Amino acid sequence: MQIKRVGQFTVVLENLPRIIATGTAVGPKEGGGPLGKRFDYVASDRMLGQKSFEKAELELMKEACNRALGKAGLARKDMDFFLAGDLLNQIITAGFTAATLNIPFLGLYGACSTAGEAMSIGSMLVDGGYARFVLTAVSSHNNSAERQYRYPTEYGGQKPPYSQWTVTGSGACVLAHSNEGIKIPLVTPGRVVDAGINDPFDMGSAMAPAAAQTLVDHLRDVRSNPEDYDVIITGDLGGFGTKIFRELVKEKSGHDITDCHVDCGLMIYHDDDREVNSGGSGCACSAVVTYGYFLPEMLKGNYKRILWIVTGSLHSPTTYQQGETMPSIAHAVVFEN
Amino acid sequence: MQIKRVGQFTVVLENLPRIIATGTAVGPKEGGGPLGKRFDYVASDRMLGQKSFEKAELELMKEACNRALGKAGLARKDMDFFLAGDLLNQIITAGFTAATLNIPFLGLYGACSTAGEAMSIGSMLVDGGYARFVLTAVSSHNNSAERQYRYPTEYGGQKPPYSQWTVTGSGACVLAHSNEGIKIPLVTPGRVVDAGINDPFDMGSAMAPAAAQTLVDHLRDVRSNPEDYDVIITGDLGGFGTKIFRELVKEKSGHDITDCHVDCGLMIYHDDDREVNSGGSGCACSAVVTYGYFLPEMLKGNYKRILWIVTGSLHSPTTYQQGETMPSIAHAVVFEN
Repeated sequence: MQIKRVGQFTVVLENLPRIIATGTAVGPKEGGGPLGKRFDYVASDRMLGQKSFEKAELELMKEACNRALGKAGLARKDMDFFLAGDLLNQIITAGFTAATLNIPFLGLYGACSTAGEAMSIGSMLVDGGYARFVLTAVSSHNNSAERQYRYPTEYGGQKPPYSQWTVTGSGACVLAHSNEGIKIPLVTPGRVVDAGINDPFDMGSAMAPAAAQTLVDHLRDVRSNPEDYDVIITGDLGGFGTKIFRELVKEKSGHDITDCHVDCGLMIYHDDDREVNSGGSGCACSAVVTYGYFLPEMLKGNYKRILWIVTGSLHSPTTYQQGETMPSIAHAVVFEN
Repeated sequence: MQIKRVGQFTVVLENLPRIIATGTAVGPKEGGGPLGKRFDYVASDRMLGQKSFEKAELELMKEACNRALGKAGLARKDMDFFLAGDLLNQIITAGFTAATLNIPFLGLYGACSTAGEAMSIGSMLVDGGYARFVLTAVSSHNNSAERQYRYPTEYGGQKPPYSQWTVTGSGACVLAHSNEGIKIPLVTPGRVVDAGINDPFDMGSAMAPAAAQTLVDHLRDVRSNPEDYDVIITGDLGGFGTKIFRELVKEKSGHDITDCHVDCGLMIYHDDDREVNSGGSGCACSAVVTYGYFLPEMLKGNYKRILWIVTGSLHSPTTYQQGETMPSIAHAVVFEN
């Protein structure tokens, strides 16, 4: 039995599965941001005509899936798996979307890293011939996340400057064997890191060590340097997390990645939008920025090789109320064109 | 590219990944049940010396993982993936267990079907050569589940006869290429079915249609009959769900499975235990009964071919408070020896 791995943690996808289509759907705030024109669908209001935030989030995921399927020219029945997750308890957005799709469903939870987890599993299932087509999707909604994770949003409490703003949106993609699309040659699934942070507003500090560990693992496994990638993209470290991440990478590996690293959380909103504090976050953050901006730019020839490191904080309201820390994770995926 | 599938939904695992070891840890009520002597570890009290139900559940999952690794004669560092999930919000039991293991972690959520989901994904990753060893784990704890899903347990409200009792326990297993252990030749991941049930106590009625659909899909895909299996095991349909499941299978396929079907939820507690009402449920139910009883019996030669159908209801407290139905899912896995 041939083992398709290199180094300690990295999986080699010899058959080069591809992202053949993506779909992105966002809320009005994201649509008004600097990448607004890059998204397939921008809702005119955050409720999307629904009665609850949760139902609005569901509409976003259904829309993103439909856009991805439409661009791929494929139907639901062509999909062998639907890999999806979100931030809500019992991943109800994914579950209720799956209830409308009639595709075999594997529910995932990796907090804001879920897009990377879905891409990792989906690309292995396609690479190994276990699926012809895989549909992945993740979502988050600012108001459903606030309601669940923090406090009743009506209270309108002030937030610290290192807090982040949950992105309202959903990103979906279709993975397949194909002669066209973005190739996925390598994935490095992450190990959980507990940096001892227990302030749920401070997700950047909690996730930065996980991102640094996965990056260093990946570079060591594949004997690469940061310069071998046109850009290293992290999911949602925000301003504070980005600073810590770069320092940790420098400390652990000696590499200064300042010039080749960007964070989706720092790209999705305007720099002068003070409401978002340290930047965007949520499952949708890395997904809509990457699927809406980076992968299309890659198809235009503006990037040849991207390392995508998607970060998540695995805490819950119960664990932080019980005084626990926030274990975090980051999954890395390589995109090539 | 060869596609390793048969029929519409079933994946063929040509390299026959194996379950090389399992670990089970349960609470005192389960230890006092008819299968009590089959479990590797029985806690003497439901708190396991911890301050909270959630921490007690965490101890159970860590114990089950350690037992499985110990029986396999392997260390944490030998594992390429840890696939785990549980019922708690943000799957904190799995996340916090992963924080202690230092194994690349893919978090799963399929409610009570999570053991089947983990087995399905894990067996594909081993079969395809993406992992040498995969550790899977699921857990549930009666008190942490009651606290989260229903109402403060202190209220002690009466429950309807069709309600089920969440199993306190955890089941883990190690998957690998090996010459020994239980073979996994086929998996049939399920599609979500929404039967319109919206009473969160009535999970049996919600899940039975999903179990019936997956069984019928599986039999059609592999051109088998129920008699081709020594036993068909469902996860946690309970008494009411079992009756509905058998009727639906009869209606959809003409097969009467009364004599070859058993439900883990009806095996784990004593028949005269009125507290459990319709039977056991929870992620741990199917896992500890199957890993603790059926797989060891299989290794003794008492079963040659088992079809394991693991069921889950994908609702959340938020969705049922908002009047939504309970979409359900069931994943099927074939065991051979």
